Amino acid sequence: MTPRKKLQGLVAATITPMTPDGQVNLPVIHQYVDYLVSEQNVKNIFVNGTTGEGLSLSVQERKQLAEEWVCQGKDKLDHVIVHVGALSLPESQELARHAASIGASAIAVITPFFFKPTNKDELIAFLQKVASEAPTVPFYYYHIPPLTGVKIRVEELLDGIKEQIPTFQGVKFSDMDLLDLAQCINKNEREEFAFLYGVDEQLLSALAVGADGAVGSTYNYLGRKTNLMLQAFAKADLALARKYQFLTGEFLNFVFKLGFGVAQTKAVMSFVSGIPMGPPRLPLVDASKEFIVKAKAKLDSIVWPDGD
Amino acid sequence: MTPRKKLQGLVAATITPMTPDGQVNLPVIHQYVDYLVSEQNVKNIFVNGTTGEGLSLSVQERKQLAEEWVCQGKDKLDHVIVHVGALSLPESQELARHAASIGASAIAVITPFFFKPTNKDELIAFLQKVASEAPTVPFYYYHIPPLTGVKIRVEELLDGIKEQIPTFQGVKFSDMDLLDLAQCINKNEREEFAFLYGVDEQLLSALAVGADGAVGSTYNYLGRKTNLMLQAFAKADLALARKYQFLTGEFLNFVFKLGFGVAQTKAVMSFVSGIPMGPPRLPLVDASKEFIVKAKAKLDSIVWPDGD
Amino acid sequence: MTPRKKLQGLVAATITPMTPDGQVNLPVIHQYVDYLVSEQNVKNIFVNGTTGEGLSLSVQERKQLAEEWVCQGKDKLDHVIVHVGALSLPESQELARHAASIGASAIAVITPFFFKPTNKDELIAFLQKVASEAPTVPFYYYHIPPLTGVKIRVEELLDGIKEQIPTFQGVKFSDMDLLDLAQCINKNEREEFAFLYGVDEQLLSALAVGADGAVGSTYNYLGRKTNLMLQAFAKADLALARKYQFLTGEFLNFVFKLGFGVAQTKAVMSFVSGIPMGPPRLPLVDASKEFIVKAKAKLDSIVWPDGD
Amino acid sequence: MTPRKKLQGLVAATITPMTPDGQVNLPVIHQYVDYLVSEQNVKNIFVNGTTGEGLSLSVQERKQLAEEWVCQGKDKLDHVIVHVGALSLPESQELARHAASIGASAIAVITPFFFKPTNKDELIAFLQKVASEAPTVPFYYYHIPPLTGVKIRVEELLDGIKEQIPTFQGVKFSDMDLLDLAQCINKNEREEFAFLYGVDEQLLSALAVGADGAVGSTYNYLGRKTNLMLQAFAKADLALARKYQFLTGEFLNFVFKLGFGVAQTKAVMSFVSGIPMGPPRLPLVDASKEFIVKAKAKLDSIVWPDGD
Repeated sequence: MTPRKKLQGLVAATITPMTPDGQVNLPVIHQYVDYLVSEQNVKNIFVNGTTGEGLSLSVQERKQLAEEWVCQGKDKLDHVIVHVGALSLPESQELARHAASIGASAIAVITPFFFKPTNKDELIAFLQKVASEAPTVPFYYYHIPPLTGVKIRVEELLDGIKEQIPTFQGVKFSDMDLLDLAQCINKNEREEFAFLYGVDEQLLSALAVGADGAVGSTYNYLGRKTNLMLQAFAKADLALARKYQFLTGEFLNFVFKLGFGVAQTKAVMSFVSGIPMGPPRLPLVDASKEFIVKAKAKLDSIVWPDGD
Repeated sequence: MTPRKKLQGLVAATITPMTPDGQVNLPVIHQYVDYLVSEQNVKNIFVNGTTGEGLSLSVQERKQLAEEWVCQGKDKLDHVIVHVGALSLPESQELARHAASIGASAIAVITPFFFKPTNKDELIAFLQKVASEAPTVPFYYYHIPPLTGVKIRVEELLDGIKEQIPTFQGVKFSDMDLLDLAQCINKNEREEFAFLYGVDEQLLSALAVGADGAVGSTYNYLGRKTNLMLQAFAKADLALARKYQFLTGEFLNFVFKLGFGVAQTKAVMSFVSGIPMGPPRLPLVDASKEFIVKAKAKLDSIVWPDGD
Repeated sequence: MTPRKKLQGLVAATITPMTPDGQVNLPVIHQYVDYLVSEQNVKNIFVNGTTGEGLSLSVQERKQLAEEWVCQGKDKLDHVIVHVGALSLPESQELARHAASIGASAIAVITPFFFKPTNKDELIAFLQKVASEAPTVPFYYYHIPPLTGVKIRVEELLDGIKEQIPTFQGVKFSDMDLLDLAQCINKNEREEFAFLYGVDEQLLSALAVGADGAVGSTYNYLGRKTNLMLQAFAKADLALARKYQFLTGEFLNFVFKLGFGVAQTKAVMSFVSGIPMGPPRLPLVDASKEFIVKAKAKLDSIVWPDGD
Repeated sequence: MTPRKKLQGLVAATITPMTPDGQVNLPVIHQYVDYLVSEQNVKNIFVNGTTGEGLSLSVQERKQLAEEWVCQGKDKLDHVIVHVGALSLPESQELARHAASIGASAIAVITPFFFKPTNKDELIAFLQKVASEAPTVPFYYYHIPPLTGVKIRVEELLDGIKEQIPTFQGVKFSDMDLLDLAQCINKNEREEFAFLYGVDEQLLSALAVGADGAVGSTYNYLGRKTNLMLQAFAKADLALARKYQFLTGEFLNFVFKLGFGVAQTKAVMSFVSGIPMGPPRLPLVDASKEFIVKAKAKLDSIVWPDGD
């Protein structure tokens, strides 16, 4: 593994393209990579996560996808983080070894959430067993309490983590508890870790307390706009940054009320990018036609500050 | 598949024995079967469920276990229900095909719970895709809202289910909503389905509204006592049935306060049966020595009506 | 206070009748008492509880209502339990003193639920301060975790409660945790306390573990039917008891899906009894006409075992 | 009512001082006002809210407190907002009329939360009935879903609110949903309403999306520090603002782990200000001595940027 610059800025949580009959559609990924880079100005990806329906795939499918993303992203993308979390420790370990073998930039692991770790030590023990299978690959913890129900505070997790997980590199922080995020950043004085925020609709609030960047599904189709928000924020033009946040928020607020999940994200990405993302896999079901019409009209109606 | 008598009475949710280093310990299962039959008078089992840490195992491990239980249970057990639920539909289907191939008495499926079905149709669609992979094997839905967060009412699910899942045979009903259970039983006039209750500490209350039997972890070590409760209930000796329920409740109430889950169940089963169940798999961690001492003392202190 | 026979059987949680403009309608209570006794065969009431919108009333209104019920119930009712719980301790104490002064049979107190007691001692401390203001009046704890969010186990509360609350007499137990209820009954060997179940749709399951009776809103209009269930259960005719439970469950299951709360209960009671219960008070709003039509049709369609 | 400048900056959620035997301690309020103004540089208060144990007080006590705060604050404070919310509509209306009669700057109302409004219209109907009793007094909605369980989005509430509640002036927004807050601010283009954030530990994140100020308990004792944060933020010195947020967060993060509520806030305020706040009222119980020692040591250990 060659040294890389520290991860910051936007990371797209990739969608898993599927064929109409529900098989993983690998050939589309080539086009998807180009789209992210050229149209959205996004050069980092998070593969097989929630948006990618990673936990709805078989181990075999996850490996194929990881391989295809790494392969197609070569020389085009900066960071390909492969999510290797699973309810089953041996399967998660198998995925970690595989990610290392194909040259992924990093791996990420969600906490198990059927049986749930009840304290920091139990969670670290699980993460450690996975991380150690890929001992040269940077490791990210994927923190998403609203989906897992595991609310172990990240700032507690950080204490001594390098001793237990030497590859520890940061966190995909998908929670609304910004005190926890702020305390993480406060503890990260030497800036060795990256804290990537995962609640897209309130990214600006996380930037305010020092988040390094963001991982999210909306950066698939609103990456360019959000990059403009990051630039405005970096220049201390808070009024402009806020304008962008309000507008992406307006879209998200609108679709949330219609019912918005991974199935709907697939539909939005399909009509924005023109790349066919296909249906989701059960238990998810296709976005309705009504949703698509309304979501498209809403997105088209937004007047962005840059005059688009 | 040969016809079998309808499933009723007690079903032990089997523990998955592990070696001290955390591998599945298949050789112990032979002894485990004999113990259930001879010591607990329990002849039905539910394999690879919650108690069996099914979702913490790899697909390969689940197959091996299913095979071993079916094989060892031959001519000794009446029903071997194999739980084949998984977050990933193709993996669940693979397990269903495998269960059919080894001659399991039945399969059971939990709802997916990372992405959650939001209504009856989405849930049925998922279950149907699994059931149809084992078209001659009786199918049970495993309903456990406290763990899955999916609260779709079972009585709604029943409407028209035979058209969609011809092998549908019943439900492992692990919920406290006894109105839902009662409505299921009310709808099941022809008694074609079996409703097996899964909240061991209040089984008597489920029997009162007509549950056919029970699936649970405590029947591994309190099966004989609970069978006596069932007999008392069948003879309309409610006072005696209540006495048994109070005593098992007294034990469970006690251990719940100490923290009681699958790890602790493994420990209790080990000291009661003498069969080494081994440690649980991460994220679960071993029961503490203190727990074991207290739980054993409590269990030993109970004076049962039959004079043990 | 004269000695009374121990409370058992059905207790109607009374509705608070209101005029069309939302004032408490005291004159209707006379008729309401007669209706309960003659039409529903219910001679015990629980006043100013959840069904009675007790917490939506002013202290003054609660006193007027308590007085009217005690007065009208004289020589007609066996037990008039007045709920005196409030978020404010001094107001709860004031209501307790008042209930004592008017000769209520008993008082009941819900836990405070804005600030919530976090353990048994904090809860008992609050209850004790109220109970001691009415030192000769039997005291009931009103346990309803689904509404209060306070899940302190009742069986723990019982330990030593007579020392702290000498008037303690029992519990309105409105929770689905039947292990807790069973342990209470198990501890109540001398039968000094009454455990009155409060989840009407699964009363039979509570009777199975020994509940003494029930407090609920449905006994306003299904009291006679439920009394027949109690009689069947007392005669060990479980099949008949179950039939009644299934039919009341069928009605409740139906209206729950339409949205069923106190406003809807008022509407049902109005059309069943012919007594105008009036609108609920904000934040509750009137049941819709559609609800009333559907609920009435459903109730009329039920064929009861006694041939009605 | 004389016109006032628009409310912005910090608002202290006042504690209700009590005597050692639990009575409201009115004479201390004079000193309390002076302390807030001179030591904390805080000139706005929110009386009888959560921190003030408003819902644990009797109606009479709430009136006395409101009167004392208005009286003592005359010519010293800019805004005295009196919380008049209650579970009982007539009591809330009575408190609103009283607040108007004593010349409160504004009133605020929490949603009822025993019976909960289920949509915007039901909530507005309740709020309107209270607001209209004080038709010349600015009205604030007190939004605190973590305590009330009512998650109706504020941005929805705003649509048309001036028609229904002409005195509507803004919101105490005590929730972590910063998308909702941002959409409120986005809709408030003419800046007619004030959005005051109520989650003290992440105020900076709310400022980033445009919050006008804050209402909270920590401004009783960390008001001066937080004012320095507001100044730094206003000067676009985000690094300095962040430093303050990290340090107040460090204190709060520490005490949260010890158990931190209104009782503990009373203790902290007592040792910081020297004004005896007294015990809380049941169901709250006194902070432990251990808590006080640890909290004081932690607070004393913090090194603030301004060299204190």
